[in-house]
Order: sequence, then C-alpha cells, then structure tokens
Amino acid sequence: MSRIPPPPGCNVELATRVLTAFLREEASKVGFQHAVLGLSGGIDSALVLELAVRAFGQDRVTAIAMPYRGSDPASLFLARQSAANAGAELIEVDISPMADAHLSAAGDLNDSEDAAVRLRKGNIMARTRMIVLYDYSARKRALVLGTSNKTELLLGYGTIFGDMASAINPIGDLYKSQVVALSRHLGVPQAIIDRPPTADLWQGQTDEQELGFSYDEVDSLLHLAIDRRYPEEKLIQAGFSPSFCQKVSALVQRNQYKRRPPLIAKLAHRTMNLDFRYARDWGC
Amino acid sequence: MSRIPPPPGCNVELATRVLTAFLREEASKVGFQHAVLGLSGGIDSALVLELAVRAFGQDRVTAIAMPYRGSDPASLFLARQSAANAGAELIEVDISPMADAHLSAAGDLNDSEDAAVRLRKGNIMARTRMIVLYDYSARKRALVLGTSNKTELLLGYGTIFGDMASAINPIGDLYKSQVVALSRHLGVPQAIIDRPPTADLWQGQTDEQELGFSYDEVDSLLHLAIDRRYPEEKLIQAGFSPSFCQKVSALVQRNQYKRRPPLIAKLAHRTMNLDFRYARDWGC
Repeated sequence: MSRIPPPPGCNVELATRVLTAFLREEASKVGFQHAVLGLSGGIDSALVLELAVRAFGQDRVTAIAMPYRGSDPASLFLARQSAANAGAELIEVDISPMADAHLSAAGDLNDSEDAAVRLRKGNIMARTRMIVLYDYSARKRALVLGTSNKTELLLGYGTIFGDMASAINPIGDLYKSQVVALSRHLGVPQAIIDRPPTADLWQGQTDEQELGFSYDEVDSLLHLAIDRRYPEEKLIQAGFSPSFCQKVSALVQRNQYKRRPPLIAKLAHRTMNLDFRYARDWGC
Repeated sequence: MSRIPPPPGCNVELATRVLTAFLREEASKVGFQHAVLGLSGGIDSALVLELAVRAFGQDRVTAIAMPYRGSDPASLFLARQSAANAGAELIEVDISPMADAHLSAAGDLNDSEDAAVRLRKGNIMARTRMIVLYDYSARKRALVLGTSNKTELLLGYGTIFGDMASAINPIGDLYKSQVVALSRHLGVPQAIIDRPPTADLWQGQTDEQELGFSYDEVDSLLHLAIDRRYPEEKLIQAGFSPSFCQKVSALVQRNQYKRRPPLIAKLAHRTMNLDFRYARDWGC
C-alpha cells in the first residue's frame, strides 16, 4: 500500500478558530465557565488541553492525570509536561485503589496476557477514570471535555462509558493525522508528538501494532470512504487493498453502537432518540 | 391538582408481545443470546427481568444485585424475591469496596446530608454498578439491558454513564404508571409493586418526595405534553397548574444532554451523530 493517497490535511488556523469558538459557545450555553479533562500524556488530550486554555483561559481549565500502578511512568511525565506547557492546573489521581477494587471483584482478572482479559482491564480503567472526571465535574461545575479523535471514534478504538464519555468533544471530527498537524501548530511538546500512540494498557503497547495498520493508512482510507463517500471500487482504484477496505469497514460498522445512545423499544407516539430528539442544549 | 386526567394506560398484552420480540430481535442482530441486568429490588428492573426471561429463556438471563453497605436491606431481599419469581440466576456483588475507593479518592464526600454530596455519592454508586455490569457483559457475552423508564429518562432522574447506560432498553418508552400496570400483568411480586419507588440513596428516601410530585401526576402531564404534543395552554385547561407545567418542562429540557451522545465540533463533511448517523445495528 505504498501508492495510497496521503491522509487528509488540516487547515490549522481555521480549525483553531472554529474549535475554540465551539468550546466557548457550547460551555456558555449550558452555563459552564470551567472545563476538566483527563490528561493521559498522549497527543489527543494534550491537544484538547491547548484548545481549552485558549477557549476558557488557563485558570478555568483543570487537567487530571490518572495513572494506574501498571502505567508507563513516561505517561505521567509527559502529562506533567503538557500541563506545564499549557499553563493549566494539573491534578494527579492514582486510580490503583479504585481499579484494583474492581479487578478483585471480577475475580478472574489475573495478570494473564490473554487479549480478552487485557481488554476488560483496559475498560475497567477507562471507566474508573470517567467516574473521577465526572465527580470532579459535579464538584466544581466544570464541563467534561472529550478527547477521542475521529479515527478512534470510527474504529471503535475506545471504551464506551469510559474514555468515550464526555459532554463535548472538540476533536471528534479530526483524524489522528490532523490531530498531529494541529498539535504541532499549537505547540504541544515535541516529546508528546513524537511518542508512538498507545492506550498504555501494557508495557510497550502501541495502537498501530494492536490495530494492525498505521494511522496514516487508515486515516487516508476513512477520509475517502466516510467524508468523500468513495465506494469500495474507487478505494481499490486509489490503491487500497480489498482486504484492508473490508477490515476497516467492518470495524466502523461493528462499533457503531459505541457512538449511539442506548436503543429504546418504541411503544408510544414519541420515543427517545427516534422521534423525540432535540439538541443537547435544547432549552438552554 | 385533583381534577387532572389519569396517567396513560397500558395495553399489557400488546406491550408484552412487542417488548419480548424487541429483546429477542435486537439481541440476535448483534449476535447475543444472553442478557444481563442490574436488579435493584425496585419495580423497573423487576419488570425488565420478567420480560427478559420471556424473551431469552430463564437460563439465558443473569441478574446482578449490587448492594452498597449503606443500602436498605429490603432492596436486596426484594431483588432475591424478584429473581426467584422470574426463575433467573442472581449474582450478588457488594459494591462497597469499589464505591468506597472512589469516595475516599474524592476526599470531601463525608457522611454529610448535603444534597449535592448525596447526589455525587449516588452517581458514583450508579457508575460503579455500570462497570460491574459491563465487565460481566464482556466476560459472558451478555447484552446489558437498560432499566430506566420513560418518566425517569424525560426528567433526567438517573445517572448518565451509570444506570442510564445500557445496550438496549425495553421499558424506556413506558411511563412509571405503565411500568406498574405491566408489572402486575407479568406477575412481579406484590411487595415490589407496593414499595414506594426509591433510588435507595439514603434511608427512607422516596422518588416522589425528592421530585416533589407524584408519578401519576407527572406521567399524566408528560404523556399529554410529549406524546400528544399539548401546548401549555391546553395543559392548564386540562387542570395542571402553570408552575407544575413549567417545572416539569424545565427538567425535561435541562436533562436532554443525558439522553444524547457527546456533542462533537463539526469540521469535516460528515460528523458523528450529525450527518454520519446510522442505526446501532448498522451492518449487522
């Protein structure tokens, strides 16, 4: 797949303007002046933090780093660097006691390298972090900012009701490669930009190794398939292999449920999210 | 408000047929043959359990009771009665170690009777239960059934990413008074039907006392306002006080965010849940 088109570019000036205005407007509509986000030490949350301090001001943004005892120490180190760079307050919450309480309740979650067990542990950690963020949100009236990018959302590479949970998400329409371009523009520390993307579920894990393809490849495909509505024949003409097209398409479809609200059985004239559906800020 | 119309009725035969078919079809579309739900000892989850055993069979439904050490012992007692009545497996998971780990991490969640603190504790417990249910779901490939009724969903009387989190919800289009009618029809134990609805956040709490109105009153209003699209003038003619109409309408609007997915800033041609929006089971 060496001849495939490059991933989509990013108009960084425009994106900065649109995204900071989005954060300010949406927060003020629902009466929030503060924001909070989980800061992982990765590029996505570092970018959201840079956007948030531009939208709300440094004093109105709190970042929370939530390491687990098994997390790579580099993650916390980079989270600190990211918060210092953005000039925002950083709170550190060790989630080990909470996550461990869940792991022992589950009983069968030992230190196995089994993929299904690793996935369940990762989900428990992501959801434990969600609880910490949402409790902070309630305590300080700070809006929870989402940090999932468009590539992750489409592929379902995240935990529903965990890291995919947020009030508003400024980067959910930016592919990973666009996140990198915008992060460069907004001065995210180079060490964070250079670090191979990882969910930090075990030592040495990288997203690309786990997914089985590179972000540049999949971003290029997703952009053409989703935003430009290329049918499969046209994607193959553009240089993508049929098996890659089918693999990605299956992931996007299979994970649609993570992007949609719970499904409710219709019985009455107007049913939640079917024919009773307003914007989130309806009435604000 | 003694002259207001009665709450909406329920065609119990039809509802049973539609809802059991819904559960079976939606589960099979996504490749699930088992279901799991949190069983609180209240009427909503007892009804979902009765529907689930009819849809999947007794051997393919697991109920999980998740008491906290401060919970009313009557809740667990009634959950056991409900599971025995439905003939489904009941697992009991004490969430105290997990919830307490979260409460101590938050630091300021003492035993105060402060309403905001009580609410935060309730949210932590609801989300802790969500983690347990979803981990069971991953372990056993069991679909998580939602147990929020239409009254709760409209009023926002529940925890987002907590008890409002599910894959599919068979009772989300039934008002509380319809839940009661259908529960009677399906043989939910009388003690559960007779118990005043409670979120069990503290001893003696009841929903109606906390909400400040009765379910019959609010169900009648919501049915006319939402399903029959009565404007406020017509609701007042029907016997509702203007202040009650306005209070309920404000709750429905203010809590819309709990019913909708996270808001994503639009930058590209097709954006999640704006113009890229398929059914949950797209591709299945």
